[in-house]
Amino acid sequence: MSEEMVCRKHRLSSFQIIILGFAGVILLGALLLMLPLSTTARCVTPFHEALFTATSAVCVTGLVVQDTGSYWSVFGKAVILTLIQIGGLGVVTVAASFALLSGRRISLMQRSTMQDAISAPKVGGIVRLTRFILRGTFLIELIGALAMLPVFCRDYGWHGIWMAVFHSISAFCNAGFDILGTNNNLYPSLTGYVQNPVINITVMLLIITGGIGFLTWDDICENKLHFHRYRMQSKVILVTTLTLIVLPALFFFFVDFDALPLGARVQAALFQSVTPRTAGFNTVDLPAMSGASLGVMILLMLIGGSPGSTAGGMKTTTLAVLLSNAAATFRQRDSAQFFGRRVDCSTVKTAATILTMYLALFFGGGVFISVYEDLPLSSCLYEAASAVGTVGLTLGITPQLHIPSQMVLIALMYLGRVGGLTLIYAAVSSKKTGSAKLPRESITIG
Amino acid sequence: MSEEMVCRKHRLSSFQIIILGFAGVILLGALLLMLPLSTTARCVTPFHEALFTATSAVCVTGLVVQDTGSYWSVFGKAVILTLIQIGGLGVVTVAASFALLSGRRISLMQRSTMQDAISAPKVGGIVRLTRFILRGTFLIELIGALAMLPVFCRDYGWHGIWMAVFHSISAFCNAGFDILGTNNNLYPSLTGYVQNPVINITVMLLIITGGIGFLTWDDICENKLHFHRYRMQSKVILVTTLTLIVLPALFFFFVDFDALPLGARVQAALFQSVTPRTAGFNTVDLPAMSGASLGVMILLMLIGGSPGSTAGGMKTTTLAVLLSNAAATFRQRDSAQFFGRRVDCSTVKTAATILTMYLALFFGGGVFISVYEDLPLSSCLYEAASAVGTVGLTLGITPQLHIPSQMVLIALMYLGRVGGLTLIYAAVSSKKTGSAKLPRESITIG
Ligand SMILES: [K+]
Ligand SMILES: [K+]
Repeated sequence: MSEEMVCRKHRLSSFQIIILGFAGVILLGALLLMLPLSTTARCVTPFHEALFTATSAVCVTGLVVQDTGSYWSVFGKAVILTLIQIGGLGVVTVAASFALLSGRRISLMQRSTMQDAISAPKVGGIVRLTRFILRGTFLIELIGALAMLPVFCRDYGWHGIWMAVFHSISAFCNAGFDILGTNNNLYPSLTGYVQNPVINITVMLLIITGGIGFLTWDDICENKLHFHRYRMQSKVILVTTLTLIVLPALFFFFVDFDALPLGARVQAALFQSVTPRTAGFNTVDLPAMSGASLGVMILLMLIGGSPGSTAGGMKTTTLAVLLSNAAATFRQRDSAQFFGRRVDCSTVKTAATILTMYLALFFGGGVFISVYEDLPLSSCLYEAASAVGTVGLTLGITPQLHIPSQMVLIALMYLGRVGGLTLIYAAVSSKKTGSAKLPRESITIG
Repeated sequence: MSEEMVCRKHRLSSFQIIILGFAGVILLGALLLMLPLSTTARCVTPFHEALFTATSAVCVTGLVVQDTGSYWSVFGKAVILTLIQIGGLGVVTVAASFALLSGRRISLMQRSTMQDAISAPKVGGIVRLTRFILRGTFLIELIGALAMLPVFCRDYGWHGIWMAVFHSISAFCNAGFDILGTNNNLYPSLTGYVQNPVINITVMLLIITGGIGFLTWDDICENKLHFHRYRMQSKVILVTTLTLIVLPALFFFFVDFDALPLGARVQAALFQSVTPRTAGFNTVDLPAMSGASLGVMILLMLIGGSPGSTAGGMKTTTLAVLLSNAAATFRQRDSAQFFGRRVDCSTVKTAATILTMYLALFFGGGVFISVYEDLPLSSCLYEAASAVGTVGLTLGITPQLHIPSQMVLIALMYLGRVGGLTLIYAAVSSKKTGSAKLPRESITIG
């Protein structure tokens, strides 16, 4: 009895740390953004707009109701960048690493909380892993900023340094915020650099690096190029990620962008394939893309990045487990499998739950906004997918929404970000309650 | 070894009977429909159009490329009606009942094939059940025809008898074919009767009766109104069906039809709520409905009717299992449950497979048609959902599609109809192959 109680109490407390930690950082950020100091016009931002921006930053989404570049002052942008960095690393990881840096001893419970936050497989080595995460993050963000520095300094002078740092962090954290907008050119994202290979390649690499997850990097650093030695999860993530970049890129290349020259067309197709899972930058005018391509982007937005990463969405492993499970059913195999390893039935059940949850949030949110705002359902579904997958791509309707619709998007961003985290508890918790002793009864489906 | 071999051989042979049975009836129907005798203009119908119509009829879909009422002769309509009746009862059930009627002894293997075709829970009583199905079907279709007779005879004279019979069978089999079109008014469905309570109520009752499945009726006839004595499956089907009629009806009532008087508005909302799962009649102009309502209809089309019924789609029980599984995950319960009964993990896995399969077919089909025809994605997704769910509702684009897109719709109808049936084998087959001995490895999702 006592062990179960302790376990449940601890679970509840990890739960609370993540849920309340995210909420606390969001609220603090919103209050800071409300200050006149945060805007270029030195005006007080309404609470709901500050809350929207702070939620979008902490949940590394990138949807905005005010153009980031022109509306917020340097102080406001710095607040947003800090929120992005905190959100990207995870509120809990940051809290734990503060404790680490200050030299305090980390209790088993704290370690376990950190482990939950980054989806690590076991408690052993968690401190080493957190150090690895922090060092890796800052190193990669630095390299990214240096790579983009020449381009931004050419275009913005000394101010280009700040530009390079901001966009490097925003890209690695899969946040999708940009500060390139001006009063004459709102919400540009990276459309000005559609033909610039340096920006394209650097941002894509930052997005992919951030999106495949720290554990995959740990595996790669440990086993180098010996693919067969990787953990099953790393293999699945790498294969799925590659597939989800190449196939949509081919689709976009053949269906869209026929006005661009070949080189730019390849870049545009690749970039728009990489960005929906779940970075949120764009180098082309999204509403001008074909309906089919926007549909494929919605699919990619819902799928999202990989577990234990800065990215959101259902996660590549969830998709892989669902497809493998479908293949197993049709081949009358007992269980889903990858690379000669069997996947637990409880994993398939959790994957089904995640799919159900994301579809319900996505569809419910889109329909609500469509009815409330009297806007076409397809555009609203695009914004809803962008919010629940914490992507940040937009067809341009978000800034015009009324407050209830903005609240729906805030809820989708928050649930999309912490919903997945809370499910991890359910999946990893060893003590289950209740129904095991109920009599079984069969039910026909399909 | 021998037992396993027998089991696999039998499974393969049931498999083949259903797959080839459906395909054979479709091909035969297509050839009959190609005859000049089948059209009012006494012309030879192109093979692909005849194939489309025959597939639509056998899979009880109701999508058409030629207006049924004006294009086909009485002979052609009779062929279509026969195909609907065969498809509705299931090719295999019909074959078995012929054997039953001719007094031949039914082997255990034949019984088992019949059982698979109608999703019956056990072999015992299968002959009784088939008799129950045949008697019930003809009795209810007769009552439906008699109820609609006065209205159709008023409007069409003696020809109204044929009208009443055709629409009664088409409604009970969830086929959605209508013969009300004329050369001046193509593809009307039941829009002429939007304010007629007799037609509305009769057709709705026929659709619901056909859609909740023969096993549910068996349970209801056996246990009368003692709900607590029903099998868990019947309880789940009845509760889910009621919810899926009432909630969408309320949605449609408040979002659409504000031009209609109150009584007609209630009828229109109820009818459009009942028809997408998966009858396919409509009493209002569908393209004039709001985008949000069309989105809700797509959802209903994919969900479909109940197992062991004339309806298609993913099935109400699949939805219920997925929702119960999600609730179980969030509440940290071991397994999904209904009414104090536990659901097997393998059932949840099959439900996840069905959801994955339907989403893939729906999305893939819609995107293909959208790209190939250069039509808006939302309309194409509507037609794809209608085809894969074997619904038959249309925004009017199906008749204008090119041959490759029509082939995609034919494939969706066929896979939507037999895909579910083949999955039943996978689910019920006791002998599984392969992966049980593979080592287990955990994978993080969500
Ligand atoms: K993002
Ligand atoms: K139908």
